Amino acid sequence: MSVVSLTVRCFALSTDGYGAGPSQDLQNPLGVRGPELMEWLFQARVWRTMHGEPGGDTGVDNEMAEHAFDGIGAWILGRNMFGPVRGPWPDESWKGWWGDEPPYHTPVFVLTHHPRKPLKMAGGTEFHFVTEGIHAALEQATAAAGGRDVRLGGGVATIRQYLRAALIDELHLAVRPVVLGAGEPLLTGIDLRALGYECAKHVWGERAMHVFLRKRA
Amino acid sequence: MSVVSLTVRCFALSTDGYGAGPSQDLQNPLGVRGPELMEWLFQARVWRTMHGEPGGDTGVDNEMAEHAFDGIGAWILGRNMFGPVRGPWPDESWKGWWGDEPPYHTPVFVLTHHPRKPLKMAGGTEFHFVTEGIHAALEQATAAAGGRDVRLGGGVATIRQYLRAALIDELHLAVRPVVLGAGEPLLTGIDLRALGYECAKHVWGERAMHVFLRKRA
Repeated sequence: MSVVSLTVRCFALSTDGYGAGPSQDLQNPLGVRGPELMEWLFQARVWRTMHGEPGGDTGVDNEMAEHAFDGIGAWILGRNMFGPVRGPWPDESWKGWWGDEPPYHTPVFVLTHHPRKPLKMAGGTEFHFVTEGIHAALEQATAAAGGRDVRLGGGVATIRQYLRAALIDELHLAVRPVVLGAGEPLLTGIDLRALGYECAKHVWGERAMHVFLRKRA
Repeated sequence: MSVVSLTVRCFALSTDGYGAGPSQDLQNPLGVRGPELMEWLFQARVWRTMHGEPGGDTGVDNEMAEHAFDGIGAWILGRNMFGPVRGPWPDESWKGWWGDEPPYHTPVFVLTHHPRKPLKMAGGTEFHFVTEGIHAALEQATAAAGGRDVRLGGGVATIRQYLRAALIDELHLAVRPVVLGAGEPLLTGIDLRALGYECAKHVWGERAMHVFLRKRA
């Protein structure tokens, strides 16, 4: 049995159940009103420091964000989280939302139906494009993680796929006191209890309720 | 314009969006696993005092529960919240879940498709059975409330009906760090933003995140 866990960390959820706003595109990578989900992070010192801004709150939310990258050896991302391009890759020009040096600093496995050569970025991030589905991506990420955890970054559709397959070991949600009204429902229609998930822990932040779901061993 | 508000208070919601567990019946008035929604209340001093038990926590959750009955002049309940009887009333024997002296102490308007005579209980509660739908129940409750607020007690299906009609002025949710996996989804498929609702306030309790949604004036 593998000792590597598949973990989702700091994934924001609105009170009405959305993990992203509607109409995601280049201008709205989190969907319309999606940024309301992320206010707990945008105000955190660690986020502001990452973006070269002074100040920011310290506290529980900041601590959660700070440790969200600890012990991660590889990432898995859905295609739409990598970028707004849909269908076959027209060329190699899209290199993710994050500029030359993405915040991952590990191998990142991007789920897609359309093959593409690996893409090496500054700072140790290398994007690998996996066309063989979620199990293959998890195998490759686990092998690349070198004994550390694999973090599933999202988006919503990808998390739902892995949840339905009960492949996620820990799901940390940042439940926000906001309603989006529309968007991508994260947990709707997924019977988490039948899949073996329970709330193992919760921590009150300043702008989010942090809920840690774990699969029973 | 009426000064009376229709308010929902302390309605519990699981992290995965359920307002009640599945398979509600006489043994499981909150549905299977439904009590997990109510732990924030069951541990509160006000609840324990109401049930003749010593102790219980004081704090934010207790305070929320304590004030949930303030300023209420009438209640509206769905049929299923009044009891497990379905279809035409076989007789007058079912008198609610709450014994001889229900906790309402006001007129209570019960939505049903099946006529029944009003039912007077000890302590000022009088159940009226309304067969003409949600608008009629609200009119009757408003008239009976004598200038105070009308509280909509639930259950889930009734709250959804009133929400979709944008008739609820304030919806106070006690969002719990638990997952039920199945049950009655409270907000799924209702576009709260399009209906004019926003989070006006939130308060961290000990066992729940209290979220207050209000309709823009």
